[in-house]
Amino acid sequence: MKVIKKELNNYMEISSLGACLGQRVELFGRIHKIRVMSGFAFVILRTGGGFLQCVCDLPMENLTEGAWVRLEGVVAEEPRSKAGFEVRIERIEILSLPAEEPPVVVNNREVNASLSTLLDYRPLTLRNEKETAVFKVQSEICKGIRAFLDGQGFVEIHTPKIVGGNAEGGANVFGLDYFGKPAFLAQSPQFYKQTMVGVFQRVYEIAPVFRAEKHHTARHINEYTGVDLEMGFIHSFEELMALETAMLDSVFEHLKESCEKELALWKVELPVVDSIPAISFEEAKEWVARVYGRPITDVYDFEPEEEKLLGELVKKETGSEFVFVTHYKTAKRPFYTMETPGNPEVTESFDLLFRGMEITTGGQRIHNYHAQVAKMERLGMEVDAFESYLMAHKYGLPPHGGLGIGLERLTARLLGLDNLRRAALFPRDTERLTP
Amino acid sequence: MKVIKKELNNYMEISSLGACLGQRVELFGRIHKIRVMSGFAFVILRTGGGFLQCVCDLPMENLTEGAWVRLEGVVAEEPRSKAGFEVRIERIEILSLPAEEPPVVVNNREVNASLSTLLDYRPLTLRNEKETAVFKVQSEICKGIRAFLDGQGFVEIHTPKIVGGNAEGGANVFGLDYFGKPAFLAQSPQFYKQTMVGVFQRVYEIAPVFRAEKHHTARHINEYTGVDLEMGFIHSFEELMALETAMLDSVFEHLKESCEKELALWKVELPVVDSIPAISFEEAKEWVARVYGRPITDVYDFEPEEEKLLGELVKKETGSEFVFVTHYKTAKRPFYTMETPGNPEVTESFDLLFRGMEITTGGQRIHNYHAQVAKMERLGMEVDAFESYLMAHKYGLPPHGGLGIGLERLTARLLGLDNLRRAALFPRDTERLTP
Repeated sequence: MKVIKKELNNYMEISSLGACLGQRVELFGRIHKIRVMSGFAFVILRTGGGFLQCVCDLPMENLTEGAWVRLEGVVAEEPRSKAGFEVRIERIEILSLPAEEPPVVVNNREVNASLSTLLDYRPLTLRNEKETAVFKVQSEICKGIRAFLDGQGFVEIHTPKIVGGNAEGGANVFGLDYFGKPAFLAQSPQFYKQTMVGVFQRVYEIAPVFRAEKHHTARHINEYTGVDLEMGFIHSFEELMALETAMLDSVFEHLKESCEKELALWKVELPVVDSIPAISFEEAKEWVARVYGRPITDVYDFEPEEEKLLGELVKKETGSEFVFVTHYKTAKRPFYTMETPGNPEVTESFDLLFRGMEITTGGQRIHNYHAQVAKMERLGMEVDAFESYLMAHKYGLPPHGGLGIGLERLTARLLGLDNLRRAALFPRDTERLTP
Repeated sequence: MKVIKKELNNYMEISSLGACLGQRVELFGRIHKIRVMSGFAFVILRTGGGFLQCVCDLPMENLTEGAWVRLEGVVAEEPRSKAGFEVRIERIEILSLPAEEPPVVVNNREVNASLSTLLDYRPLTLRNEKETAVFKVQSEICKGIRAFLDGQGFVEIHTPKIVGGNAEGGANVFGLDYFGKPAFLAQSPQFYKQTMVGVFQRVYEIAPVFRAEKHHTARHINEYTGVDLEMGFIHSFEELMALETAMLDSVFEHLKESCEKELALWKVELPVVDSIPAISFEEAKEWVARVYGRPITDVYDFEPEEEKLLGELVKKETGSEFVFVTHYKTAKRPFYTMETPGNPEVTESFDLLFRGMEITTGGQRIHNYHAQVAKMERLGMEVDAFESYLMAHKYGLPPHGGLGIGLERLTARLLGLDNLRRAALFPRDTERLTP
């Protein structure tokens, strides 16, 4: 028998090269650009850690932009290079060559193409520097969220995406055949995260959610990444808003350290979130109607334009790019939402708008079994169909609440992307199932 | 407008109580046990951080086991308590009471019930100490994996679970109707993680995968959590095995620190994984056949019994509870698997067995576009159907490979669970869609 020893793949960070002046190094990456000069060439190598200027006076017949290579070379001081050094190439090993010229140029600062081309050629266009940066930022947002929640005693859970019931009772679910039985794709981990409050008290999940909404807009996709958390022992839903404020603040601090280059590429100013203003849904509707002279046509929800205008008003009034909207109407919130004591017309719920778009929905839930069953009966729901959900209430749940953040929406708003699809690696919309 | 300030929900860790002797503290939790003595009672409080012995001489009419409470009390030295202190309760606020007596006792060390009862009453039975511990360990396994991979320059990705093609070409896929078009649930993120090697070179994803396998055994579930990684610039698939060895070693180190109590509950000895033996598939089959006098009936795969016997042989021979099995036959591995140079009958692939069960499949992939297309044509595949997958190869991919770990299998093997369902919060099998 052979023995495999634990071993880490050697891999040289560009940032550490500055300490290697005069040394011979081995580098892996993709040839980003070749600029042929007289008697030598500038070769820009793209690695996971960024771009590296190399100079080469070796023959380079087969070397093309887009080739994957292993280079050996000596790190040399070079004040005219951005990094302050460059690598003088002494050996080039071509590991893999493109089979065809790319139909879209991706090695400029931006991809100059329509949205549909950008998405049709996603495996290629994601290699563009700015497109790559979107998903580096997204991964660091997740890392920041996890670090914050782990530090607050939340436990990460994994709940099923194939569910036996149409959980939220809506029409927007994908159905599937599950060994001859009807099943659905989960629209959220709502029931399971509430159930898990009975086990861990504080839980979170970052996982796909599925919405069969027929909307075909710049702000909808049909599969997205839900950042869901649920927390026991709250006194009021305001604690959830305070927690989210602290979490966003912590995430942006993390991005400042981890994504300096990527944020600069997208010219992002990180918002300040020491505090976030909150306004009730009704007040917000009236405010926007009054200031902009818009008649209120939908008394239950914001129109996208109203969200945008509210964002502008709040920004002007308070400087904040975020605003919590609270106390949505009971008729519009799911059956598990707690009603406001003394005013059962509205709920202990909130949305968070960021730069004029909803990125979070949250609220306090009904934890008392009898209260929950009574409300479901009042709504004419078939209580028996929710037996396994209500088991958590029946055997006792503490007061609790939670929230869900759309990861793609947060990413898109932060980077100023004009279409949500650009914040998903391989977006799914009503028309798009590939790549 | 109101202003929500960032604020953290106060929450007292039991481990910090020892430093609060003589102080009045506020605690939240569930009443685990009440033992009435003469003139007072022992009240065991279950919190996220563990169990806490409290003493109470207040009236407790409504207080029941299973109630969720807020307690105020004074921390007092008490050598007879395990922790060395206890809390003398001065105020009890009942936050939530169970509506019914639980049909299964969960506040003993173990739940004394059949597997189907355990799963039918999952929202309740998960509250049992040992059941809870399984998922604390599982969450820490994920944390350990992420910490390791983040440290190695891997970027976390989120890829779609609704896919337009039957990716792996197998029969075991769930189909669904996607706005009138046929779609499938992803059996793995294989194509997407390979594609993303062209973008980030090192990527990983921890996300649900779906297998419509009709197996109804102790080692199969139909939705599980895949820990998938893919890495560019490998020289050989052995580097993947070396990386996985290092990762497991690092994860177990993390568990040692973070899950001492949970591992003790399950009487787990963490395996040592400085190195892991590796044996070729063919040798392994022959070895087991020879030692146990078993005729070889399936030349392409292990029977479950053979996996178990191989595990025992390797343990006896080397002391290792892990074994890599390498060089699976080309006919049995997916079309993207690289064949062994000089021996196209077998592949640069491996499985990892842990205590007699496969927990990982991995290998080097074909990165060259022409080689991949030629192999697909040889296999009679419809190459055009894979256009968006092959785009990554067409515009160049570095040599790469990766692996996938079943999170539930790793958890189950580590804790010695006799059925994979026990390592999933809400398992899905051919019969089970709820809870």
